[in-house]
Amino acid sequence: MRTNLEIVQECDNFPYPNLTNNTAYTKAIEPLWLFFLPDDLEPHGFLIQSVVDRMPWTPSFRLIPESKQVHLLKYPGRKEWQTACNEAIDELLDLTRAKKAFPRLGKKRDEKFPIVGAKFDIGIERSAMSLFGIIGQGAHMTVYTRTSLGEMKFWIPRRNANKSTYPNMLDQAVAGGVAQGETPFECIVREAGEEAALDEEVVRRDVVAAGTVTWFNVSDEKAGGEVGLMNPGVLYVYDLEVGREVVFKPVDDDIQAFHLMSVDEVRDAMRNGEFKPSCAAVMMDFFVRHGFITAENEVDYVEIVSRLHRKLPFRTSPGF
Amino acid sequence: MRTNLEIVQECDNFPYPNLTNNTAYTKAIEPLWLFFLPDDLEPHGFLIQSVVDRMPWTPSFRLIPESKQVHLLKYPGRKEWQTACNEAIDELLDLTRAKKAFPRLGKKRDEKFPIVGAKFDIGIERSAMSLFGIIGQGAHMTVYTRTSLGEMKFWIPRRNANKSTYPNMLDQAVAGGVAQGETPFECIVREAGEEAALDEEVVRRDVVAAGTVTWFNVSDEKAGGEVGLMNPGVLYVYDLEVGREVVFKPVDDDIQAFHLMSVDEVRDAMRNGEFKPSCAAVMMDFFVRHGFITAENEVDYVEIVSRLHRKLPFRTSPGF
Repeated sequence: MRTNLEIVQECDNFPYPNLTNNTAYTKAIEPLWLFFLPDDLEPHGFLIQSVVDRMPWTPSFRLIPESKQVHLLKYPGRKEWQTACNEAIDELLDLTRAKKAFPRLGKKRDEKFPIVGAKFDIGIERSAMSLFGIIGQGAHMTVYTRTSLGEMKFWIPRRNANKSTYPNMLDQAVAGGVAQGETPFECIVREAGEEAALDEEVVRRDVVAAGTVTWFNVSDEKAGGEVGLMNPGVLYVYDLEVGREVVFKPVDDDIQAFHLMSVDEVRDAMRNGEFKPSCAAVMMDFFVRHGFITAENEVDYVEIVSRLHRKLPFRTSPGF
Repeated sequence: MRTNLEIVQECDNFPYPNLTNNTAYTKAIEPLWLFFLPDDLEPHGFLIQSVVDRMPWTPSFRLIPESKQVHLLKYPGRKEWQTACNEAIDELLDLTRAKKAFPRLGKKRDEKFPIVGAKFDIGIERSAMSLFGIIGQGAHMTVYTRTSLGEMKFWIPRRNANKSTYPNMLDQAVAGGVAQGETPFECIVREAGEEAALDEEVVRRDVVAAGTVTWFNVSDEKAGGEVGLMNPGVLYVYDLEVGREVVFKPVDDDIQAFHLMSVDEVRDAMRNGEFKPSCAAVMMDFFVRHGFITAENEVDYVEIVSRLHRKLPFRTSPGF
């Protein structure tokens, strides 16, 4: 049985600076390389030494070992430099796959994700984001209904057994990555249609944007990719109340079944480690915002609320 | 006109660690002394040098200049040591007033506040908390109603012109410090009766606990006390929806008037700096949780949500 703080720590597992004994934080942060974009003094990613060593760096990148920095250069070609930068990343990842530098790097997919906080439009394949330790962006929607007595019940899907990441675990009703050029709100509307066949107009009318959940995670075996990578992340969280007549059914192969669960059932499943960790964090935030977890029933309340909203290590807006 | 991020920064104004240029954080943190309690390896407060210099330390305290530490000792007398520790703080503050060491230290009041995260029950006068840089605890309740068209309106009080702190500024409908031995929920129920004459049963039934807002503030002139003191703080936030028939009126001399304000009016007042900074932060958190501030209309959204929930520099639960 995990405590609520332990559930949050499963996502947010990178050490924090500490006033009296800073060893854990220093030991974790010192070996990391910083990833920089052109004309930008602030970093956008963390690379670990073994990634820097194995990556087949092209001339578009400059490594500075003394300060542990990787810079994407401004003039790798004769094109407009922003386009050239985007191509330089694609080219590097093609080469990485050709040389099989990272056997657990997923297949190339068309979906691209933005480098959050960049001063220009630059994207990177989803499966490669962790290698650069760039902030990942997702949108998660908690869907609930109320019984005739006013009790909240949650529509919770269970992931399929054949998923490469977090098989058989519980998830949010609707969740997905925010792609390049997409806003979080448009992402959740799109995913609500794709994953739960929810009517677009109903979602646009009734959904409530309710903040973010942020963390700094170091990847483990369950995530399915390379282990020990830096994964700072932000999830934009949404709440949707639906009528009692709405029934959720799996739309695609990702989900084996939808369950309608009470607060106590969700809480127990979280404690037993049945939820995908990021989804457990989003449920925890929901429970805090709606008064199910309080200062009176949770000794770690203040710590939990802060840990659910960790300040990310990199800039999250262009900040011109 | 302040941006939303600037509004949050007014409360949360102590620098953060920075990956590429840590000067501001180091310069702010290095001169601080740490305050320790007996049998506890983790600190509970930050004292600035000028406070350490002017404080008429008694033999109950030990100063270690090499590591900038102040320790409250375990055996200052022959009583049970926890009682003796409480008395040692009282005695020090009596002496401080007798010697007029801090001219802007408020009068002695009966109200005591807990040292948050201590492993035993220990309190300190409210007006002296800032001198030790201990985490301050409050409970704030945002009260709103809905027009016949479903639009939210907020009951917002304006502080009286003769208040020593933040005169004439806008405030939360109900707010107060969480006293020693009181839970945040009982605090908000008590304050709702005292400050807004709200019916206790209605508050207990309808109030929703909705998380916390946390910050690390360095005091300025407007706070009314000594300037440059360290004020880490946590506010337990509550939402209360009331019917349209409920009308708020000032109960005591603290408030000159209550206003029923729309979302836009509250937003404008925040931008113009009309709110007490901590109350602006609580309103901002409300606007985030209820979908008025979103990723689409606020470029600093992710940063703002994290800054509203800063991880406090000290332990917030006993952590046995």
